[in-house]
Amino acid sequence: MDPRVHDHAEVLVDWSARVEAGDDVVVRVDEGAHDLAVAVAEKLGERGANMLATYVADEVESAFVRAHDGDFEQDPDFEVEMLERADVVLSLRGKRNVAEKGAVPGDKRAAYKRSRTAIKARRMDADWVSTQHPTRAHAQQAGMGIAEYRDFVYDAVLRDWESLADEMASLKDLLDAGSEVRLVTDGTDLTMSIEGRTAVNSAASVAYDSHNLPSGEVFTAPTDPEGEVTFDVPMTHDGSRIRDVHLTFEDGEVADWSAEVGESALDDIFATDEGARRLGELGIGMNRGVDRFTDSILFDEKMGDTVHLAVGRAYSSCLPEDEQGNQSAVHVDMITDVSEDSRLEIDGEVVQRNGRFRWEDGFEG
Amino acid sequence: MDPRVHDHAEVLVDWSARVEAGDDVVVRVDEGAHDLAVAVAEKLGERGANMLATYVADEVESAFVRAHDGDFEQDPDFEVEMLERADVVLSLRGKRNVAEKGAVPGDKRAAYKRSRTAIKARRMDADWVSTQHPTRAHAQQAGMGIAEYRDFVYDAVLRDWESLADEMASLKDLLDAGSEVRLVTDGTDLTMSIEGRTAVNSAASVAYDSHNLPSGEVFTAPTDPEGEVTFDVPMTHDGSRIRDVHLTFEDGEVADWSAEVGESALDDIFATDEGARRLGELGIGMNRGVDRFTDSILFDEKMGDTVHLAVGRAYSSCLPEDEQGNQSAVHVDMITDVSEDSRLEIDGEVVQRNGRFRWEDGFEG
Repeated sequence: MDPRVHDHAEVLVDWSARVEAGDDVVVRVDEGAHDLAVAVAEKLGERGANMLATYVADEVESAFVRAHDGDFEQDPDFEVEMLERADVVLSLRGKRNVAEKGAVPGDKRAAYKRSRTAIKARRMDADWVSTQHPTRAHAQQAGMGIAEYRDFVYDAVLRDWESLADEMASLKDLLDAGSEVRLVTDGTDLTMSIEGRTAVNSAASVAYDSHNLPSGEVFTAPTDPEGEVTFDVPMTHDGSRIRDVHLTFEDGEVADWSAEVGESALDDIFATDEGARRLGELGIGMNRGVDRFTDSILFDEKMGDTVHLAVGRAYSSCLPEDEQGNQSAVHVDMITDVSEDSRLEIDGEVVQRNGRFRWEDGFEG
Repeated sequence: MDPRVHDHAEVLVDWSARVEAGDDVVVRVDEGAHDLAVAVAEKLGERGANMLATYVADEVESAFVRAHDGDFEQDPDFEVEMLERADVVLSLRGKRNVAEKGAVPGDKRAAYKRSRTAIKARRMDADWVSTQHPTRAHAQQAGMGIAEYRDFVYDAVLRDWESLADEMASLKDLLDAGSEVRLVTDGTDLTMSIEGRTAVNSAASVAYDSHNLPSGEVFTAPTDPEGEVTFDVPMTHDGSRIRDVHLTFEDGEVADWSAEVGESALDDIFATDEGARRLGELGIGMNRGVDRFTDSILFDEKMGDTVHLAVGRAYSSCLPEDEQGNQSAVHVDMITDVSEDSRLEIDGEVVQRNGRFRWEDGFEG
């Protein structure tokens, strides 16, 4: 086994999830993530944690959902109760075919998701972390050979997370103090409120309210978007390719949408529930260890010189205690390249132009 | 996919587990059983059941157990509570290396098992069924090519279970009416009490208190064994090869044991707990669709012309309501070939000689 698989498991268990002896840890194993599951099991054993592995293969889920009549039972309690008692949930992604979920009709997939909102909520009440094992399917999606792709993944994952967290703190401070964000770039002029929100310094650890490995973004939960936005970074959602999405917001909701490719996948997303048309997240990528787009949201949204928005569910860590934030069965991230002809303003002041932050060399105010 | 995988899934879900709409079904997926898991998921979707797949890869479990200090938490509640609520548990075996578990020190493996007795009990309170997907590792263990092995497995699984159940009822009736069983063959002369026991007509369905697919045996829960027994059918237990086991029983317990190969694996079994030295099962194989030994207990113990005994846990379905029966963290089956020089007596009357039952042609009383 590539020794970096063990390093990956160690960062995941110790830095990201902060697993301690006696923790009940659910490990969600994707069908291509077997090797990482073995390495994670070893670390959990060393730490004296308890482990329960679940199998989250897309082929299995798709077969189930496709064959079902669509009237899914709401949040079956055997799964809710298991997650209710879990201290930590580790999702080890690693697909063998990233297009698999696309074989399920969108309305049925959406119904299945809606039937699992409490399950998802319990999962996110735990110290959860999502990461990805470098499989051939993901390498193919990225347009890379497997050896090159492994280097890409481990360069993004095996970082000095503490230093990056220090760097990201500057942006978090600006967002926490601000009230309004405006993003302007080609095909985009969008204004959002961030009043009263707390930004997350997403340093790939639950200790920072950060739940992805790799991470390296600062995100918050905006409201009341007005204007338009274009997402020019290629993406695959639930097995469907989506390209060049354009959204228009009116009265805080998506009023109009289009895509060059995959518009019907957007239709399905926005038909899921009411919250799917509202914003759940504004994120600013700051991980310069991710040096190219690979059509995988876990990596793409963390890349430096990018900004992303998600429609759907907001993360509670960004919200005031008395506010529930946007609720939805979906949380779909979409990314804009801001390396050229762009600016990000907080309360009218430019904090990033053409990908450079105001505290960086080369910033033009 | 081989169309017989779908047939296998259908027999499992409908005949064996009797899954109904709304049932909470835990599907335990071994690392080589992916294809069967997909086919089972499809059937569960069709039936309107709820599904939660767990991943029971030996490599994952072995890595965890090996790395742990051995002081395992007793029955972590996230797993107990999940199984407590499950209506059905389907175990889809399908190893990629049958020797994997042998890499874990026996005392640690036994400690891990002991820490999971309530988990095992909850699993067996549900309508549980174990079956096996034909992997290359199992074919290799059987000394067969994969195509030939698939034929072997599906011939054993895809049977007319109702007819076999009728045939097996004759033996069940004799055992239910009897008080004492004596088994005599080369190296074996063992007497056991079956007073007050109910034999199970194991027709591969929970409707018959039968939990294996394939099945085709009649079994009960004997007590007070006296004498000696030799198990000449090759077996692999937790990754260790065991050959030609000889046990001597005194005062109802294993007093002495030896094996030509794998004696230390026996040492580990008998050191697990007190119940491991008492009998849990007497089973008589009646599935003539299983036509050879393949070093897999699921198939071997069902073969016609064989008798097996298990040390360890007794199945509650064989016991009077007010009796708990033998308790243990293990249940280890061992098999004797009775096709030659053998006889099985119930209360002094020969019911099987040299593999032929008294109601069959060729029986010599």
